[in-house]
Amino acid sequence: MNGKLVGVGVGPGDPELITLKAVRVLEQADVVVHFAKAAHSGNARTIAARYFKPGVRELSLAFPVTTELPKHEARYCDVIRAFYDDAARDLAAHLDDGRLVAVICEGDPLFYGSYMHLHVRLAPRFHTEIVAGVSGMSGCWSAAGTPIAQGDDVFSVIPGTLAQDELERRLSEADAAVVIKLGRNLPKVRRALERAGRLDRAVYVERGTMTGERAIALAAKPDDCAPYFAVVLVPGWDAQR
Amino acid sequence: MNGKLVGVGVGPGDPELITLKAVRVLEQADVVVHFAKAAHSGNARTIAARYFKPGVRELSLAFPVTTELPKHEARYCDVIRAFYDDAARDLAAHLDDGRLVAVICEGDPLFYGSYMHLHVRLAPRFHTEIVAGVSGMSGCWSAAGTPIAQGDDVFSVIPGTLAQDELERRLSEADAAVVIKLGRNLPKVRRALERAGRLDRAVYVERGTMTGERAIALAAKPDDCAPYFAVVLVPGWDAQR
Repeated sequence: MNGKLVGVGVGPGDPELITLKAVRVLEQADVVVHFAKAAHSGNARTIAARYFKPGVRELSLAFPVTTELPKHEARYCDVIRAFYDDAARDLAAHLDDGRLVAVICEGDPLFYGSYMHLHVRLAPRFHTEIVAGVSGMSGCWSAAGTPIAQGDDVFSVIPGTLAQDELERRLSEADAAVVIKLGRNLPKVRRALERAGRLDRAVYVERGTMTGERAIALAAKPDDCAPYFAVVLVPGWDAQR
Repeated sequence: MNGKLVGVGVGPGDPELITLKAVRVLEQADVVVHFAKAAHSGNARTIAARYFKPGVRELSLAFPVTTELPKHEARYCDVIRAFYDDAARDLAAHLDDGRLVAVICEGDPLFYGSYMHLHVRLAPRFHTEIVAGVSGMSGCWSAAGTPIAQGDDVFSVIPGTLAQDELERRLSEADAAVVIKLGRNLPKVRRALERAGRLDRAVYVERGTMTGERAIALAAKPDDCAPYFAVVLVPGWDAQR
């Protein structure tokens, strides 16, 4: 009698942007799992904790400190792989005992989320379910009141981690885009937008749907300070302009 | 004393995938507006109606019959523009009377949604708010249990209405993609995927999160029948393969 693994999206930050289904699963879960990151600890847990049932077991997965290791280095990959392998082993023990295990995820679980690493390790052996969530980027364009894509627009999500030439090429190609993973990549993203002729329509959003939310034209933003989870919106829908 | 216009995303189809915020706004709304399309009538309303307050005024906006008109023809554009202009005028009358007007939208209001046409007409004059929703595509990849994008993946949403060469080029460029607006475009989309070398990983999903949901490898789908709102998922995340 095996348990069930559920990846639960809790939305972009505003606690009201959680779904009824996420609330129900959280109320039923025997074990709740969340990821803890230095810059970002416990946002999903803050949203979700009010729904935990009494006596719930909580499992906090703290990412190993790897900021001093280059991202594509073999040792970084080894450390991360071992971290997810160990976490999957811990979850498997609960699933073998027949428990309902909920992994809470900011945004949407299968869209650039850490949950995916657990899912691919456990889905072959256990029953799994995904509760889709409102993505962080939806939260941002909704907070900014910025229609993002319409009609025949090609819409792209572009990580700010790419090289500047690649960013420029991708931004030139897309009718509408969101640049994610900003942080210290913002100066490079700004240059790429300028070279792609898109800076004038770019909107910078940080803490979308949360306390301290801020949305301004990127061209009017006087500095290049940005949290990693801030985004730049490049709205499409040319026909309406 | 003006009213407020709220674009309310009600999610991808499963009534449980509505947010707490959408429920609260629907419970408070004086006027609820929904779009009615031939192939698609009332799905948003079916999800939302249980929350309407007693005595709510409902406004159904029936798209003018235009299927016999080519999409880029001037007359088609005129008909559609007049439809949205008239609808905006009706909503403005309620807003001038101080009412809370909620426009219900499947998926996410500002992502390929009809609400956007009302928003751009009314936002300059009235207070507006957007309640982000779980998008249809999130519902589809969650229902199929398909991790869609990770790490440095560039993710693209590609309308199946594009020409085959353009589809092929876009599919070759994207690390991860979702093809929307399938319907009778499916044979063309299938050929473009094959030529882009992506057919083997493509997943076809129809009625994601709803009764009658179906997800299968596109290569294994024996026919080219597809509803307009079905999607093809092309998952990225190569490093994990």
